[in-house]
Amino acid sequence: MKHFLEELGGLVESTVHDSIRSLTEKDEGRAQQVLMNEARINQMEIEIDELVTRLLALHQPMARDLRLLTAAIKINSDLERMGDLAVNIVERSLSLMKKPPVKPLIDIPQMARLVESMVRQSLDSFVKGDVAQARNVLLSDDAVDDLRDAIYHELVCFMEKDSSTVSRALDLIFVARNLERIADHATNIAEDVLFLIQGVDVRHHAEVRD
Amino acid sequence: MKHFLEELGGLVESTVHDSIRSLTEKDEGRAQQVLMNEARINQMEIEIDELVTRLLALHQPMARDLRLLTAAIKINSDLERMGDLAVNIVERSLSLMKKPPVKPLIDIPQMARLVESMVRQSLDSFVKGDVAQARNVLLSDDAVDDLRDAIYHELVCFMEKDSSTVSRALDLIFVARNLERIADHATNIAEDVLFLIQGVDVRHHAEVRD
Repeated sequence: MKHFLEELGGLVESTVHDSIRSLTEKDEGRAQQVLMNEARINQMEIEIDELVTRLLALHQPMARDLRLLTAAIKINSDLERMGDLAVNIVERSLSLMKKPPVKPLIDIPQMARLVESMVRQSLDSFVKGDVAQARNVLLSDDAVDDLRDAIYHELVCFMEKDSSTVSRALDLIFVARNLERIADHATNIAEDVLFLIQGVDVRHHAEVRD
Repeated sequence: MKHFLEELGGLVESTVHDSIRSLTEKDEGRAQQVLMNEARINQMEIEIDELVTRLLALHQPMARDLRLLTAAIKINSDLERMGDLAVNIVERSLSLMKKPPVKPLIDIPQMARLVESMVRQSLDSFVKGDVAQARNVLLSDDAVDDLRDAIYHELVCFMEKDSSTVSRALDLIFVARNLERIADHATNIAEDVLFLIQGVDVRHHAEVRD
């Protein structure tokens, strides 16, 4: 079962990566790739859900195995949502592709690198049962929020100074917002991993994260 | 178990309602109520998760009971996210409270009424096992998207015409966006209900929804 989530996770990871590359390189081919991947991600989500339900019914697992399967239900859903968010990014990227840039893209690629590494680490922490990696993901979440806020405020300034940038700047604000939501799903996965390994529920407990 | 999700659902419903009232009535008391409710919602989510895991372990349920419990895991998570989104709305509402309105609020309250009825119907469909209500929720999703787009385009026009409205208009765009995401979670719940009752997975199959 872990194997299937690992496969889905790998596909989601490369889909998120392609969505940002479609933006930074104005690459329509990569944008199309994201749309194709999403269909496959949706199909895999359904298959994994069915598998988990079958495993629950057949093996009637206890304790740790049971926790692994309930975590799998949530992680599966988080991964599928990441695929949706990559599609949202691609929609903005396709709209921006034909227009002159508002500004050089520096902070969004930087935010994307951080978010991609959170996705990778959250998946790794699940596959390897690695507590340190899961904690790393939780620690990165604040940095992502700070980058999102900085991007937001800078783009609001652009819009206020030059109203011709409004529509393009909004597209970029939503790219940053979708990246932040991908990071949130990576954080959810890391929290599930910590609960799975340590039996400690770190959701909604900021103090435990530090 | 249904009883606990019903209780959580009721709290989430009134929290979403209060978040919008805090905006339309510039009511800081309601905004504070939302922030207080969210802490309770987070706590209830954890308790319901623990309950479901206990039920899975103790009763080793089969077939329909098993599907009910796996659906409960997802619905619980959808409800908790709705609470987060109501908090996002309140943050925008608190920022708008002290500023002159960009425009009379007509379409956002209209969108909110539709979204609130989706939340109510998705919960009702789960509690009563009502297929018709679950299908109604899926049918409303397009109307919500249309309202979100209309609100977006109108506010972009305001920003382009008068740059002093940028920051306030953005707040309203994000309120609409958060409402749309609440509707998405109601849709997820309705899909889970349909799967539970009919054994048909309607996710990602637009044609089944019609």
